[in-house]
Amino acid sequence: MIERITILGTGLLGTSVGLALRASGFRGTITGWNRGPIGAHYALECAAIDGFAPDPITGAREADVTVIAAPIFATLDLMEQLSILGPDHLITDVGSTKAQITEAAERLFNTPERAGFLPGHPMAGKERGGADNADPRLFRGAVWLFTDNPGWRRSERAAALVRDWRELVGAMGSRTIDMDAARHDELVGWVSHLPQFVATALSALLEEEVGDAPELKDVGGRALREMTRLGASPYSMWRDIAHTNTAAVEAALHALEQRLAHLRENLRTPGLREEFEKANRFRRE
Amino acid sequence: MIERITILGTGLLGTSVGLALRASGFRGTITGWNRGPIGAHYALECAAIDGFAPDPITGAREADVTVIAAPIFATLDLMEQLSILGPDHLITDVGSTKAQITEAAERLFNTPERAGFLPGHPMAGKERGGADNADPRLFRGAVWLFTDNPGWRRSERAAALVRDWRELVGAMGSRTIDMDAARHDELVGWVSHLPQFVATALSALLEEEVGDAPELKDVGGRALREMTRLGASPYSMWRDIAHTNTAAVEAALHALEQRLAHLRENLRTPGLREEFEKANRFRRE
Repeated sequence: MIERITILGTGLLGTSVGLALRASGFRGTITGWNRGPIGAHYALECAAIDGFAPDPITGAREADVTVIAAPIFATLDLMEQLSILGPDHLITDVGSTKAQITEAAERLFNTPERAGFLPGHPMAGKERGGADNADPRLFRGAVWLFTDNPGWRRSERAAALVRDWRELVGAMGSRTIDMDAARHDELVGWVSHLPQFVATALSALLEEEVGDAPELKDVGGRALREMTRLGASPYSMWRDIAHTNTAAVEAALHALEQRLAHLRENLRTPGLREEFEKANRFRRE
Repeated sequence: MIERITILGTGLLGTSVGLALRASGFRGTITGWNRGPIGAHYALECAAIDGFAPDPITGAREADVTVIAAPIFATLDLMEQLSILGPDHLITDVGSTKAQITEAAERLFNTPERAGFLPGHPMAGKERGGADNADPRLFRGAVWLFTDNPGWRRSERAAALVRDWRELVGAMGSRTIDMDAARHDELVGWVSHLPQFVATALSALLEEEVGDAPELKDVGGRALREMTRLGASPYSMWRDIAHTNTAAVEAALHALEQRLAHLRENLRTPGLREEFEKANRFRRE
């Protein structure tokens, strides 16, 4: 049923969606739009999209499904713009926090007279953004979360497009999991946002402490490279996450500060063994 | 000149040294000894060693070079035992902290009448130990640190064995860097021990917070897997590191706690941008 898809934002994720759709056998039209010209042209060059839309609304009007692949605040802006679309359309997104987007989806979409909106979040990415880092395999083996609301009364067509989009997500190689938006933000606060902010803090600290001796970074080896890889992540993306999931991230960071202090105070006591054993359990196979 | 090598401790590192020596073309004899029988037999099976020594002293007496590949306190014990060896022998080690081992090397070895001792530390390892995880390529592209003291007056033969062992380390694929033992311990406190203890604390925290929902670990994806991989590291190895580099690790952990608190207090201020930019600089290529 889905024949025309428009991708708003052809950065790393948007361009990867286009490539993954093609790799999974999708034969319909894929149109792209990007705020800046560079990402859009690269997406066209690598055949992630077939052509350009002149603006987001025109692009979405011509599509069955519109995928917003932008930072959170840009996503919320685009949702306002697209709220004039009628019930033959489905819009979905890939934003990393879901409370505000799901609230906007409730307020602006998902009645029988309006377009449908399916809040989504593929747990896939790279520490460096941009269309030139896009990858048709980015979503293989990943989890793609949805914070859909079973209470929403969508048009029949929008409901059918939701089912079809879930199928396409499966075809791109992802496993879908549904959860409540509040639970989503709490959970990703622990398993995604906390690891990112820890890597940022660790990298910033090491830049101050050993950054002037660049050859010594080699000394750290694989462990150091892994623990600081996410230090390359762009502020532009994480600013919006910090602003829209502040309480959960604050709680997670505070808990880790206390945990580090506990470990520090127990470097020479049996408490250290307990910490290692608990950590070992998290990584048991 | 080196024809006979004895490896005391055929766990991950000791067995990998045997395999790497063979892979680099070393044709002499390699004898192994291990406190427990399992590691020793596995090392023999995979041809990392040619045979067993009945005890550490017999093994070291029959060797030109003896490599101690054991946790720090076991290494210090073995150094006491081997201090009766004469000036025709060289002993070296792979311990992760160097202040106490280098002090013992000064006290027990490295005079014209005694064996030589070269304190070493290959920056290579895995989060799971044991001979069955050994790898002949473990040291390729790694840095192998030495905390040798140019003031030590070794026998001519011991000095020559030092030069030859450094060559073998190069043949195993490692780049050698020399530094003072105090500077070594401070530096690895930042780039090796801090990342490990952070991964342990993060893994232990997540075990408590989301450990009862194991399918949700998938949600974190690659970032979570990387940031907690070292959570699998064994207490048995890290206990000795925590005990012998306590001050440096305490200082590094305390600095990171403060850094996390600073980031937490600036989730919605321009201070967050500064942290990301500083972290980006650490990861610039």
